[in-house]
Amino acid sequence: MSIITLTTDFGTSDWFVGTMKGVIAGINPRANVVDITHEVAAGDIRSGAFALAASYCFFPKNTIHVAVVDPGVGTRRKAIAVQTTNYLFVSPDNGVLSFALGREKIKAIRLLSNERLFLPDVSRTFHGRDVFAPVAAHLSQGRSLKRLGPAANRFVKLDWPRPKGKGNSIEGEIVYIDRFGNAITNIDAGSVAGIGPDCELRASGKRLCPLKSSYQAVPPGRPEAVVGSCGLLEIAVNGGSAASLLGLKVGSGVLVQCRQLTRR
Amino acid sequence: MSIITLTTDFGTSDWFVGTMKGVIAGINPRANVVDITHEVAAGDIRSGAFALAASYCFFPKNTIHVAVVDPGVGTRRKAIAVQTTNYLFVSPDNGVLSFALGREKIKAIRLLSNERLFLPDVSRTFHGRDVFAPVAAHLSQGRSLKRLGPAANRFVKLDWPRPKGKGNSIEGEIVYIDRFGNAITNIDAGSVAGIGPDCELRASGKRLCPLKSSYQAVPPGRPEAVVGSCGLLEIAVNGGSAASLLGLKVGSGVLVQCRQLTRR
Amino acid sequence: MSIITLTTDFGTSDWFVGTMKGVIAGINPRANVVDITHEVAAGDIRSGAFALAASYCFFPKNTIHVAVVDPGVGTRRKAIAVQTTNYLFVSPDNGVLSFALGREKIKAIRLLSNERLFLPDVSRTFHGRDVFAPVAAHLSQGRSLKRLGPAANRFVKLDWPRPKGKGNSIEGEIVYIDRFGNAITNIDAGSVAGIGPDCELRASGKRLCPLKSSYQAVPPGRPEAVVGSCGLLEIAVNGGSAASLLGLKVGSGVLVQCRQLTRR
Repeated sequence: MSIITLTTDFGTSDWFVGTMKGVIAGINPRANVVDITHEVAAGDIRSGAFALAASYCFFPKNTIHVAVVDPGVGTRRKAIAVQTTNYLFVSPDNGVLSFALGREKIKAIRLLSNERLFLPDVSRTFHGRDVFAPVAAHLSQGRSLKRLGPAANRFVKLDWPRPKGKGNSIEGEIVYIDRFGNAITNIDAGSVAGIGPDCELRASGKRLCPLKSSYQAVPPGRPEAVVGSCGLLEIAVNGGSAASLLGLKVGSGVLVQCRQLTRR
Repeated sequence: MSIITLTTDFGTSDWFVGTMKGVIAGINPRANVVDITHEVAAGDIRSGAFALAASYCFFPKNTIHVAVVDPGVGTRRKAIAVQTTNYLFVSPDNGVLSFALGREKIKAIRLLSNERLFLPDVSRTFHGRDVFAPVAAHLSQGRSLKRLGPAANRFVKLDWPRPKGKGNSIEGEIVYIDRFGNAITNIDAGSVAGIGPDCELRASGKRLCPLKSSYQAVPPGRPEAVVGSCGLLEIAVNGGSAASLLGLKVGSGVLVQCRQLTRR
Repeated sequence: MSIITLTTDFGTSDWFVGTMKGVIAGINPRANVVDITHEVAAGDIRSGAFALAASYCFFPKNTIHVAVVDPGVGTRRKAIAVQTTNYLFVSPDNGVLSFALGREKIKAIRLLSNERLFLPDVSRTFHGRDVFAPVAAHLSQGRSLKRLGPAANRFVKLDWPRPKGKGNSIEGEIVYIDRFGNAITNIDAGSVAGIGPDCELRASGKRLCPLKSSYQAVPPGRPEAVVGSCGLLEIAVNGGSAASLLGLKVGSGVLVQCRQLTRR
């Protein structure tokens, strides 16, 4: 049984996601379709890319990951499939794969142009249903990547903001706010030797967030920093929303200060 | 493996949908249950009917479509199963099937009255769990429609508002707002010869929306019309919500004006 | 095919739930994962416990129920698996199982301590992914409970507020508000002889809610009480939200008055 994951901004209040699953089931009734999320903010390619990058590698080898955050649907933007050592990715070529692919070894890239693998009538507004779902379903049946269309040698990449080191400080920024209001930074705890209990973060230039090892390591309502489940430093408030309480949003600056830091 | 789809107003914040799936799994562990949507506004039969009609035909033949938007649960409203050439539908008889059935060839209608196919204790408030889920699960095992209850020869139909043609204009209205804020009209682009790039819509009597071929064919923040994924004209705003920005809601009037129109 | 249910406060806007499903599929590709709900309010163990108790028994025997409302993740709070006559439960030991287990016959309790059944790198913030998903997947393959860790003889129990009887009255309280705004009380209609059409509820000390048999048994916009799908009395408003219109929330008091009551 092959697995197809879906990451989209389609929401679940309409019929969009269900319809994609109907199309997939009509082609490969044995595909196991798993939702990563459909609540990416409308058109927010960067957040979709982050969600996919945070989860894709927890799926078994050969999973097909479909990401459709596609504000350019109906324009000349390209659509691609990318084979890596472990996974297959299918998406519009707008950068939504770039954070995941940045961590993968790429074997092949193909443009999606073979209309025989699409639905017969392709709309201008819903390629999730008409292009990406059927292509993923055909791939899940073992159809060769070569059948999709011509080879390509690049894909659109989003910039990942790199944290800047200065002595024993690191300047970073918030890259994602999760449903709990935790504010995830671009600072990978594993990439810096010395990030430990003597470190503290300052968010928005002021609030002090000591680095702790669990969400409840500070009193209720107080801020802290933790190493989150993706290895990135994040700012949390015990029992509350760090984003609301500290006024953080994507792009807000953070400053980490430690006794002794060594970049790996 | 047979497919059962669910379209409800149960939301996903409580246990209602999961419980239906538990009931189905207990009767037919091999059923593949697919959510169309559970976010139909509470009791909004018309929106549920629209969502089902927009998606049901993308599922493979013999799919069982269950629609439970059921404000009359516990009253004398009837429950029905409808066999068409391609699909089986199960729902309260309140019109929620009517837009889908309007496009299907009906073979048989049965009332649901055989209590041996329900859960042993039928509540007065949750027939999704107690009636519709078990009936759908039994049908997915190939049980005959005749076992459900007596034949019927009609079902409740909702009115579909028909657009009115006047020379080279068509008066229509908004019938659905999707999660992106796109405002879908009742005007089927395929039913009118002449709908093309020289057409424009006026929404709420004022704002001009030129007919374009993609969501990004106008500058960001500007309104346009497109032929949506169901073939209906819809009003969109590039990168924004047409419903919010233009003050549109279900029932708002729209006027299409073209150089030359011929109704098919 | 074995069933694993998930009840969490992870929401669906991030990648958390999808990632758990990826982990499960990597261990047991044949597990059928069913969502009960992921919209438990963040950290609201009591609501999670209620949702699980309302649905778990509608699943087939041997279903594995995983509940992860886990504000104490990363602290010394324990994690447990509980075998009952019919089901297996897996969760942090914080009370989230207690309403369901209160209705089950318990056969064995085990602490989760065998790290070979976890993901190789256990984070401090996401045990749904790193501990509970893999443990449930291993259990779904028939692995013995004894492999999980040492036996335990108790688990954290939440108090269930007991209604108080006074003559022909019962004082209770609201324990859950559902997505329709129905306000569910702690009064089990089946536990009291005499609850019937001559009863009425008073919510918040004032508004009269006659006991009726369906949501539409009063005029639109008017309040009533019904016996809900879990057997508990609930306050509803025909076509509206009882919680909003009557100002009810969890903990609000209700008073039932009947002609003749006998507690069973």
